[in-house]
Amino acid sequence: MRKSNKKRARPTRKLGLPPGSLVHIGEIKTEKPSITLIEYDSHGITETRFEDIELSRAHHATREKMWLNVYGLHDPAVMAEIGRRFKLHPLVQEDILNTQQRPKSDEYTDYLFIVGRCFDFDAETRSLNSDQVSIVLGRNFVLTFQERATGAFEAVRERLRAEHGAMRAHGTDYLAYAILDTLVDRYFVMLDNLSDMAEDLEDAALTRPTPALLAEINRVKHEALILRRAVWPLREILNTLARADNGFFSADTRLYLRDIYDHTVHVLESLESVRDLLADLLDIYLSSVSNRLNTEVRILTVLTTLFMPATLIAGIFGMNFHEMPLLDKPDGFWVALSMMVGAAALMAASFWRRNWLRTR
Amino acid sequence: MRKSNKKRARPTRKLGLPPGSLVHIGEIKTEKPSITLIEYDSHGITETRFEDIELSRAHHATREKMWLNVYGLHDPAVMAEIGRRFKLHPLVQEDILNTQQRPKSDEYTDYLFIVGRCFDFDAETRSLNSDQVSIVLGRNFVLTFQERATGAFEAVRERLRAEHGAMRAHGTDYLAYAILDTLVDRYFVMLDNLSDMAEDLEDAALTRPTPALLAEINRVKHEALILRRAVWPLREILNTLARADNGFFSADTRLYLRDIYDHTVHVLESLESVRDLLADLLDIYLSSVSNRLNTEVRILTVLTTLFMPATLIAGIFGMNFHEMPLLDKPDGFWVALSMMVGAAALMAASFWRRNWLRTR
Amino acid sequence: MRKSNKKRARPTRKLGLPPGSLVHIGEIKTEKPSITLIEYDSHGITETRFEDIELSRAHHATREKMWLNVYGLHDPAVMAEIGRRFKLHPLVQEDILNTQQRPKSDEYTDYLFIVGRCFDFDAETRSLNSDQVSIVLGRNFVLTFQERATGAFEAVRERLRAEHGAMRAHGTDYLAYAILDTLVDRYFVMLDNLSDMAEDLEDAALTRPTPALLAEINRVKHEALILRRAVWPLREILNTLARADNGFFSADTRLYLRDIYDHTVHVLESLESVRDLLADLLDIYLSSVSNRLNTEVRILTVLTTLFMPATLIAGIFGMNFHEMPLLDKPDGFWVALSMMVGAAALMAASFWRRNWLRTR
Amino acid sequence: MRKSNKKRARPTRKLGLPPGSLVHIGEIKTEKPSITLIEYDSHGITETRFEDIELSRAHHATREKMWLNVYGLHDPAVMAEIGRRFKLHPLVQEDILNTQQRPKSDEYTDYLFIVGRCFDFDAETRSLNSDQVSIVLGRNFVLTFQERATGAFEAVRERLRAEHGAMRAHGTDYLAYAILDTLVDRYFVMLDNLSDMAEDLEDAALTRPTPALLAEINRVKHEALILRRAVWPLREILNTLARADNGFFSADTRLYLRDIYDHTVHVLESLESVRDLLADLLDIYLSSVSNRLNTEVRILTVLTTLFMPATLIAGIFGMNFHEMPLLDKPDGFWVALSMMVGAAALMAASFWRRNWLRTR
Amino acid sequence: MRKSNKKRARPTRKLGLPPGSLVHIGEIKTEKPSITLIEYDSHGITETRFEDIELSRAHHATREKMWLNVYGLHDPAVMAEIGRRFKLHPLVQEDILNTQQRPKSDEYTDYLFIVGRCFDFDAETRSLNSDQVSIVLGRNFVLTFQERATGAFEAVRERLRAEHGAMRAHGTDYLAYAILDTLVDRYFVMLDNLSDMAEDLEDAALTRPTPALLAEINRVKHEALILRRAVWPLREILNTLARADNGFFSADTRLYLRDIYDHTVHVLESLESVRDLLADLLDIYLSSVSNRLNTEVRILTVLTTLFMPATLIAGIFGMNFHEMPLLDKPDGFWVALSMMVGAAALMAASFWRRNWLRTR
Ligand SMILES: [Mg+2]
Ligand SMILES: [Mg+2]
Ligand SMILES: [Mg+2]
Ligand SMILES: [Mg+2]
Ligand SMILES: [Mg+2]
Ligand SMILES: [Mg+2]
Ligand SMILES: [Mg+2]
Ligand SMILES: [Mg+2]
Ligand SMILES: [Mg+2]
Ligand SMILES: [Mg+2]
Ligand SMILES: [Mg+2]
Ligand SMILES: [Mg+2]
Ligand SMILES: [Mg+2]
Ligand SMILES: [Mg+2]
Ligand SMILES: [Mg+2]
Ligand SMILES: [Mg+2]
Ligand SMILES: [Mg+2]
Ligand SMILES: [Mg+2]
Ligand SMILES: [Mg+2]
Ligand SMILES: [Mg+2]
Ligand SMILES: [Mg+2]
Ligand SMILES: [Mg+2]
Ligand SMILES: [Mg+2]
Ligand SMILES: [Mg+2]
Ligand SMILES: [Mg+2]
Ligand SMILES: [Mg+2]
Ligand SMILES: [Mg+2]
Ligand SMILES: [Mg+2]
Ligand SMILES: [Mg+2]
Ligand SMILES: [Mg+2]
Ligand SMILES: [Mg+2]
Repeated sequence: MRKSNKKRARPTRKLGLPPGSLVHIGEIKTEKPSITLIEYDSHGITETRFEDIELSRAHHATREKMWLNVYGLHDPAVMAEIGRRFKLHPLVQEDILNTQQRPKSDEYTDYLFIVGRCFDFDAETRSLNSDQVSIVLGRNFVLTFQERATGAFEAVRERLRAEHGAMRAHGTDYLAYAILDTLVDRYFVMLDNLSDMAEDLEDAALTRPTPALLAEINRVKHEALILRRAVWPLREILNTLARADNGFFSADTRLYLRDIYDHTVHVLESLESVRDLLADLLDIYLSSVSNRLNTEVRILTVLTTLFMPATLIAGIFGMNFHEMPLLDKPDGFWVALSMMVGAAALMAASFWRRNWLRTR
Repeated sequence: MRKSNKKRARPTRKLGLPPGSLVHIGEIKTEKPSITLIEYDSHGITETRFEDIELSRAHHATREKMWLNVYGLHDPAVMAEIGRRFKLHPLVQEDILNTQQRPKSDEYTDYLFIVGRCFDFDAETRSLNSDQVSIVLGRNFVLTFQERATGAFEAVRERLRAEHGAMRAHGTDYLAYAILDTLVDRYFVMLDNLSDMAEDLEDAALTRPTPALLAEINRVKHEALILRRAVWPLREILNTLARADNGFFSADTRLYLRDIYDHTVHVLESLESVRDLLADLLDIYLSSVSNRLNTEVRILTVLTTLFMPATLIAGIFGMNFHEMPLLDKPDGFWVALSMMVGAAALMAASFWRRNWLRTR
Repeated sequence: MRKSNKKRARPTRKLGLPPGSLVHIGEIKTEKPSITLIEYDSHGITETRFEDIELSRAHHATREKMWLNVYGLHDPAVMAEIGRRFKLHPLVQEDILNTQQRPKSDEYTDYLFIVGRCFDFDAETRSLNSDQVSIVLGRNFVLTFQERATGAFEAVRERLRAEHGAMRAHGTDYLAYAILDTLVDRYFVMLDNLSDMAEDLEDAALTRPTPALLAEINRVKHEALILRRAVWPLREILNTLARADNGFFSADTRLYLRDIYDHTVHVLESLESVRDLLADLLDIYLSSVSNRLNTEVRILTVLTTLFMPATLIAGIFGMNFHEMPLLDKPDGFWVALSMMVGAAALMAASFWRRNWLRTR
Repeated sequence: MRKSNKKRARPTRKLGLPPGSLVHIGEIKTEKPSITLIEYDSHGITETRFEDIELSRAHHATREKMWLNVYGLHDPAVMAEIGRRFKLHPLVQEDILNTQQRPKSDEYTDYLFIVGRCFDFDAETRSLNSDQVSIVLGRNFVLTFQERATGAFEAVRERLRAEHGAMRAHGTDYLAYAILDTLVDRYFVMLDNLSDMAEDLEDAALTRPTPALLAEINRVKHEALILRRAVWPLREILNTLARADNGFFSADTRLYLRDIYDHTVHVLESLESVRDLLADLLDIYLSSVSNRLNTEVRILTVLTTLFMPATLIAGIFGMNFHEMPLLDKPDGFWVALSMMVGAAALMAASFWRRNWLRTR
Repeated sequence: MRKSNKKRARPTRKLGLPPGSLVHIGEIKTEKPSITLIEYDSHGITETRFEDIELSRAHHATREKMWLNVYGLHDPAVMAEIGRRFKLHPLVQEDILNTQQRPKSDEYTDYLFIVGRCFDFDAETRSLNSDQVSIVLGRNFVLTFQERATGAFEAVRERLRAEHGAMRAHGTDYLAYAILDTLVDRYFVMLDNLSDMAEDLEDAALTRPTPALLAEINRVKHEALILRRAVWPLREILNTLARADNGFFSADTRLYLRDIYDHTVHVLESLESVRDLLADLLDIYLSSVSNRLNTEVRILTVLTTLFMPATLIAGIFGMNFHEMPLLDKPDGFWVALSMMVGAAALMAASFWRRNWLRTR
């Protein structure tokens, strides 16, 4: 079973609700939403953490550029307040809360809305997990929304905090790029994990071909497909954003988007290789299984062949004819036994010639 | 057998008829057509139900916007009357009655004609059913035609009736959107059902691989294909309607169409996963079957191996040589039996070492 | 063998001839060409049948619009005379006589040349046959050329003859549409036949998997492919003709072309389903075959298992030891027999537990 | 082995040479280059054959249009002289000598360079051979280069020589068309040969499934692929040349190019059928093989079943109990034999009922 | 295992670094970077080799055009100095050092950046290796960066050095073309090696079908895929560069780019054939394996059949009936033996008729 019913988040929860209803769709991965605000310009950086969305109302902007990050999405009040403050379209708010979005980029008059996915590898279950990352890029602000704190963007924050941080001189478009770059870097890590798993499975397919292994191969194939689905649309988004000027990314930053576009193409190609390798595993598995059948039939044949002539010879000398050769010879018994061994040896020699006595 | 001949509606019934002939093609799913008219504007809502199409002629519009819904299509007189009143093209009328249309959107001067499909899941036969839903969107009216009352649009009606119903303030294009949104929401439900069935089939393929199961896998694969065929063209329709202004959908409503376009892309991707899973089931099934063969051949081999040496030993001591060792020893018989058991034990040990005694 | 050499018409007969050579390529399906002329306008209709192409020369047009139909193409003189009269390009004449054309539409200055295929089902051999139908649409005439009289267009003629025939008021473009519509209606009938055959084959694959059945499955797959090849290019032709104004079809008639375009899309999708079903049959067939092998190996195993212990016991009591238990007991023989039956029963019980005694 | 190393021409011979180096790449198929010049206009035709390229220098044009044909490409001096005279680009000269080109069409200022492939069928080895045909179409000349004399264009020459040859009145573009038409006509012949081979292989797969047959199926599949690779790009070339005016083909001749474009589409579709048929052969082959295995296991099972009970009965009456029934009856032996035959008959009857005694 | 973990270069080493960080990603293949400068114009050529990047600072241009080549990339100081001197964008510098780039071409204001891959064949491990080749083409300079010295471009240098070297008269765009041409020529060599390996594997699949062979087939399939990935994007790059004028390649040189574009198309098509051949090998391998199983089951059946009747006859004459025919005849024993041989001969004859005694 690939995914238990419980884990598969069901978007059907919203059946019949009007569009733009602020209902969180997806697993609840964080106890309490956490809101952090980073304000920065080339002179410096100010970081604020809000315990409560209410408190944030009193806050006044201190610097030119700001990055507001939210972990935990199940409290609609947070979304509603931020949506109101930044004039986000109801459909954007809905998409942020529905964490099963396909990666996409929607352009609005005052901001660009980008949805991506952030992956990490669960070493224990050897499986890939992913969270939705929603990015709203305005003229001088970036909003990011995540299902939980993963530490994925800590390196970006460090670069912002760096004393002579060149990054603070760039616009918020460069910050948005840095966040997307972080997502794409992680895809390479996932790729490595998938490659490792595929190699382990190849060894297993050659040595222990069980139906459970086949199910495991299919599971990894499915994980590779899930990763592909996150990267494929992102590639298209990056291609579009890098090539056309829509006013949100400067020409200079667009060169950087083209760079991560190259990375996504690279990831997709390598992913195609992993998928090919996994598809080949099926053939190796099936070939392993029929090889075993051949070996077993061969053993059966060899045994039958070795014992049948002997049994026949024993049967012959067990017949009750009054006159039979050898029966009254003192060493007749041993002659018969020699005949048995001789027949078996003859057979064995013939098998030896055909290389059948190897068990594979 | 996938579909019995009876259930497969045959469009060949119209062979030779001129185009635009008002003949209902499809199963009759409703005894008597039922016509309901909802008139609304931001001030209020009026609902009327016509027992007979004749009675509707006397009706005069009471409000700015109207939604006329018809259940049951086999009475051509109803179609003819509505067609005459709303000046529908004969080909549109024909398409409404021919309930096997592929989803499509045709633009006419005064109205937009959209065909979609509404799915529901029959829990008893564990199969998907679908009805054609025809939508005619004019400047201030929406006409909908369904094969039978499914209750699918009740939530939309409720939102229209809501006291401060924001929906009544929107144009009829928003109503058409709400109806399409309802269809798409149901595709997610169908997807869940298909996923569940696929998971059940995976378990069965591992444990009970029978040819009947293979037929069942193919049946579910076919149902997934039918759903795909309803969603795929709708995706294209939504993409076109959301992107270009053709005068029927306002710029604001087109944002909402883009939202359900996203949903259809999501459905299609998930459907692709279900189809992959079902295709993998074939491999699992076949692997289960050959695994059983291996097991059976192995049992045969083990048994042959255990009994053959014993039988040979019995044959040897059944030979009629005058002089044979052991025969006259008091415990000769028991020595022979021990030899038999010993040979079998030796063989069994060798199998044990290769893990063959597990039946797996 | 799919097609005998004789039946496969060989276009190689024309090797080395200059282009535009009026040689009939294809089977001769009609003894003598038959030429009928229908002249019509909103006032009435005149039908003439020419025994000989020479006689037609004396004929003078009596009404605005005309439809000239020819059955039987192997007499080049007929083609030459019509070609001369209607100034048809030599390549058009050649294509009309070469009845293996792929459906296509070629635009010339004064006429539009359309090639389609008309199918019928041979109930006896359960196979699809098809004839080329060539249509030349001029400003006020339609020429049609068929390999033989199939009665396919009789309904169109009837509609022209109808007393208040609305059809006579339309231009010849509408007549051309009606002819194409007839071809497409027949594709639905072929689809039904293919579906029926596929369902019969599915039953057979489950119950009687013989190599001959596999050949039959492949034959039906091939017939489905032939139908697809006739419909696929026609879909493209209709799409082009329905969307762009090239002066041959009026805006009104183009709406009707769009309708049959929809039908061809529907046919192609259903055909895809039939092809999927037929591809699945291969898996069912193979699974049926390996199921049989499993059953047979199981029977062998069960039999071996039941008889081997008994045979060993018989062998043991056939040994010639001087002192053996039971041999001198009066009911020793029956004890031995009971041991045999007991061992077999034990084995049978173990198989019973695993459900092996079903032959399935 | 598909192609021996020797036969596979290796373009690697040119590694490191500057572009435009006049080195012949490919097999040498002709001893000595042969150069023929046909000059023609509507008044007549003059044919000249040059034994040596040197002699051609003295030749002066006698008529408006000319066709220079060269067989045999391994003497670079010939190419160099012609290249100099007709001002051919070094890359064109190189392509003419490298006879492994993919079909293509390159436009230069003064001429159009077209590469095609001419096929013939070797009836002895039942395989397809092909030569590169290079065509240079200038305003009033056509140059053709072939690897050897195949007689493929003899019919074109005959049409040029014909007394009232309409062909001489056409421009050289029509001559180029006629040459391409000849190539395409030959593809139909190849198609027939491939079809015949596929049908023979189908019979063999059903009756004699040996690994050698599988290798043969793959060989024919490969030949079909080679043909496809020659036709596919030619189709594209013809499509381009027929549709756009590039100054080399007149509007009238372009209609004829459209005709051979149709032929290439037809060839490609039929080729697709042959490839499908060949792919199906693999399934038939594998099914034939497993059918044989089933038959053999069935024979083993039947034999085992018939002899095991009899052997057991013999064993039972060979036991040494002092008191045993039947042993002392005069016809005891015959009763035992009857029991054996009876058991075998019972078993045989059970198999008869299941239709197992057919060897199929 | 396809690639050991160690060999697979992990781009994850750069996780979290800002873009443009000059860190070498990839294996270190060269001990010490080696920098050579070739300056040339139509009058002559000057070659300089720098032991140290520092020394290069003192160098002044002596001729119009220059080619700077660097082997060995792991010393960031070299890249930094060259980047500074030629004003290379940080992302270009980063791409040069990250030797896992997919082939691509990026246009900057003052230069064109092209990434390709140079292959060579390791005859010992029978595998393909590849290095990244980065080319920067400015108005009058070419920079090339390679992971190690392979001698691949020695022929290009020789042509530059040639006394009346026509090449020195061309611009640096022609030099860039010559370098790309060299890369493409090597793809043909790789293709030959892959073809040879595929043919060897085909022989092995027919004669020695072991699971190790299957793994080897998959390995070669993977190598073919790696080559395809280098050629496919290069084809696109060449297509773009050959067709559009971007100011870096002259119209004349673009004809030469079109020529190597043709070569890449050729390589890709041949590669497709090799991949087809390798895919067919799987079928041949599987067919070989089941053929062996058939042979083994047949031998088992033949042996069983030959010995079972004889064993039964021996059992019959070993029964202890008081009255039995033949037992007291002097040659009874020999009659029984003849019966055994006779039965076996009868069986053998029946097998002989079916051709079963061949082991094939
Ligand atoms: Mg996808
Ligand atoms: Mg790519
Ligand atoms: Mg891909
Ligand atoms: Mg890719
Ligand atoms: Mg791939
Ligand atoms: Mg595979
Ligand atoms: Mg479809
Ligand atoms: Mg999606
Ligand atoms: Mg899809
Ligand atoms: Mg999709
Ligand atoms: Mg997919
Ligand atoms: Mg599969
Ligand atoms: Mg449809
Ligand atoms: Mg299709
Ligand atoms: Mg389709
Ligand atoms: Mg499909
Ligand atoms: Mg299948
Ligand atoms: Mg190709
Ligand atoms: Mg065709
Ligand atoms: Mg085609
Ligand atoms: Mg094709
Ligand atoms: Mg096709
Ligand atoms: Mg197939
Ligand atoms: Mg198969
Ligand atoms: Mg690729
Ligand atoms: Mg090529
Ligand atoms: Mg390719
Ligand atoms: Mg290609
Ligand atoms: Mg291919
Ligand atoms: Mg294959
Ligand atoms: Mg296969």
